[in-house]
Amino acid sequence: MSLLKINQGNPLIHCITNYVVANFTANGLLAIGASPVMADEIAEVGDMVSVASGLLVNIGTINGRTKEAMIVAGRKANEVGIPVVLDPVGVGATAFRRETVKNLLREIKFDLIRCNTGELAAIAGVNWDSKGVDSGVGEIDIEQTAKAIAKQYNCFVIVTGEVDIATNGESIDYIAGGHELMTKITGTGCLLSAICTAALAVERNNLSILSDVLKDYKKVAEKARQKEWLGTVQQEVLNQLHQIAGGRA
Amino acid sequence: MSLLKINQGNPLIHCITNYVVANFTANGLLAIGASPVMADEIAEVGDMVSVASGLLVNIGTINGRTKEAMIVAGRKANEVGIPVVLDPVGVGATAFRRETVKNLLREIKFDLIRCNTGELAAIAGVNWDSKGVDSGVGEIDIEQTAKAIAKQYNCFVIVTGEVDIATNGESIDYIAGGHELMTKITGTGCLLSAICTAALAVERNNLSILSDVLKDYKKVAEKARQKEWLGTVQQEVLNQLHQIAGGRA
Amino acid sequence: MSLLKINQGNPLIHCITNYVVANFTANGLLAIGASPVMADEIAEVGDMVSVASGLLVNIGTINGRTKEAMIVAGRKANEVGIPVVLDPVGVGATAFRRETVKNLLREIKFDLIRCNTGELAAIAGVNWDSKGVDSGVGEIDIEQTAKAIAKQYNCFVIVTGEVDIATNGESIDYIAGGHELMTKITGTGCLLSAICTAALAVERNNLSILSDVLKDYKKVAEKARQKEWLGTVQQEVLNQLHQIAGGRA
Repeated sequence: MSLLKINQGNPLIHCITNYVVANFTANGLLAIGASPVMADEIAEVGDMVSVASGLLVNIGTINGRTKEAMIVAGRKANEVGIPVVLDPVGVGATAFRRETVKNLLREIKFDLIRCNTGELAAIAGVNWDSKGVDSGVGEIDIEQTAKAIAKQYNCFVIVTGEVDIATNGESIDYIAGGHELMTKITGTGCLLSAICTAALAVERNNLSILSDVLKDYKKVAEKARQKEWLGTVQQEVLNQLHQIAGGRA
Repeated sequence: MSLLKINQGNPLIHCITNYVVANFTANGLLAIGASPVMADEIAEVGDMVSVASGLLVNIGTINGRTKEAMIVAGRKANEVGIPVVLDPVGVGATAFRRETVKNLLREIKFDLIRCNTGELAAIAGVNWDSKGVDSGVGEIDIEQTAKAIAKQYNCFVIVTGEVDIATNGESIDYIAGGHELMTKITGTGCLLSAICTAALAVERNNLSILSDVLKDYKKVAEKARQKEWLGTVQQEVLNQLHQIAGGRA
Repeated sequence: MSLLKINQGNPLIHCITNYVVANFTANGLLAIGASPVMADEIAEVGDMVSVASGLLVNIGTINGRTKEAMIVAGRKANEVGIPVVLDPVGVGATAFRRETVKNLLREIKFDLIRCNTGELAAIAGVNWDSKGVDSGVGEIDIEQTAKAIAKQYNCFVIVTGEVDIATNGESIDYIAGGHELMTKITGTGCLLSAICTAALAVERNNLSILSDVLKDYKKVAEKARQKEWLGTVQQEVLNQLHQIAGGRA
């Protein structure tokens, strides 16, 4: 029901995201009836946030300039009272990303951190071998760490993987299903973060709408993989999102 | 016939455009037999314009640096005598965009402004609720405003919507048809602006070639929507452009 | 066998590439079982290179900032001993690109230059009419020039076209086949450069693995064009890469 609600609410989502997935993210938001806007000039992000219903901050191809834009936009979002979501892409990979995410978490009150296990470990300062922007491998008590981070920053935390978890710091929802083919195309995690932003824009402070989004996304993955051909998965994800958001699946 | 002419002329189109639609724009230009080149470094845009047959300026993800590049490129285009097209994406959304478009219109002589109703309203200084980069809703005499802007800046103005209009400030062409599915994927307006640049590159100062482009694009929309699946519309647009430009549809 | 080897090795490839093809490049690398990471902030590229197995430098939409990032990344790659590949997109089109490539070739020891004939001519200082980022037309002894450049910079040189050539400065491999449809979508050359980076990451200093990649890519082109529709070629390329890398074709 979460995607249907987004479709009815048609929230405008301001995305400061990476150029690798910008097109896929815009099309994914359009597919569920949200309106995307991408803008990262420091001089205008405040204005853009003021007309938006939600802000996504994704550090995938961040640079010094866009980092500043994220901070300006995030503060404005806090001021005007719209939800802000952080996607800390590859935060464990470089000192610059670790510092940046620390800054962002200090300057901005986030509603949600949406990450993979490697990124969670990096935020928590746990040792982890996080291959580039991939999740990587290591030992971590995902549930406890996610809860601790959610409490520390007073926000929801979603950690996606074979089984997704979503927590408010107290309770945890587990969402199984999906298909690993989703990890073989770029941007599925980034798009999920954008969709979560749209979900919080229509129903804030609600863990269950996020869990519903995760369930729908697992369904999307299962349907999309039925095509079996990797090259069409991106299109299938858009198709399935559109069907579910339109109440047709 | 307009796309066929572009295909025969094979113009090189220099695009300073946003990173959300850069790939789709490049593929769309290739599909109609034009050659795209994307370059936005201030130090080189003058050189690039000098070898190009047309310049597209699209402010979708503009920043301070690319704004300067647009001005340098636009002036050079005026100097060497190639057509310049403005796509004022979301100009009504922020003060920075309004200022930028004012600057661009002062510094550069454009051949065409290709916009939606909300963007037209913002350029004309008319009150309008322009949701992000979407068209939005409001009250405006589109025909009179488009004509006035065309006269003021001595250029063609195209306002796309359910019925497109194209004007030289005196007469107006109306182009109906198409399909609203085109508004559910990102970049169809941006690509249209790029195609209009290519059209003016092969036949300048000609309103009727622009109207022909709009008719062909409406046809593309009608064919593309027959697939009914949102995720494949982007591909279908490329397919149909390629067919029409190749004289096969 | 080259793609299969990449799939087994799963190298992390750091791409500093243009925003037009970033998504297609990431998906293409994922399709063959490599892991892409895109990062171009000067403050972090050194760290990113340190965890990567190969570095791709593509100047397609270069600017002053990313040029510096390329130099920092390239030097670090030389220092830590991972392969570096140069894709000198449209180097002949502007003085800035010519200067940039000169700088890059002076500051960085490349393992491979992957270019088209027009770009080869520009690097060699031969007269050539290189339409934008397209290959263009002119007179050049491709084999001799490629060999000379390979010797001068002590690297492999691949020049793609109707017949690809790959040289180490002494011998030359010729790879025929493919389909011209590959030149009608953007990013096929850029993706090939990324795949060559992945190939050198799993087997360095080996001309024959590069020739194998070229053969596989020609096969991809032949399979992809069987769909006949331009709009789906991008997807077909990903499909075919995935099949070959998975040992299924």
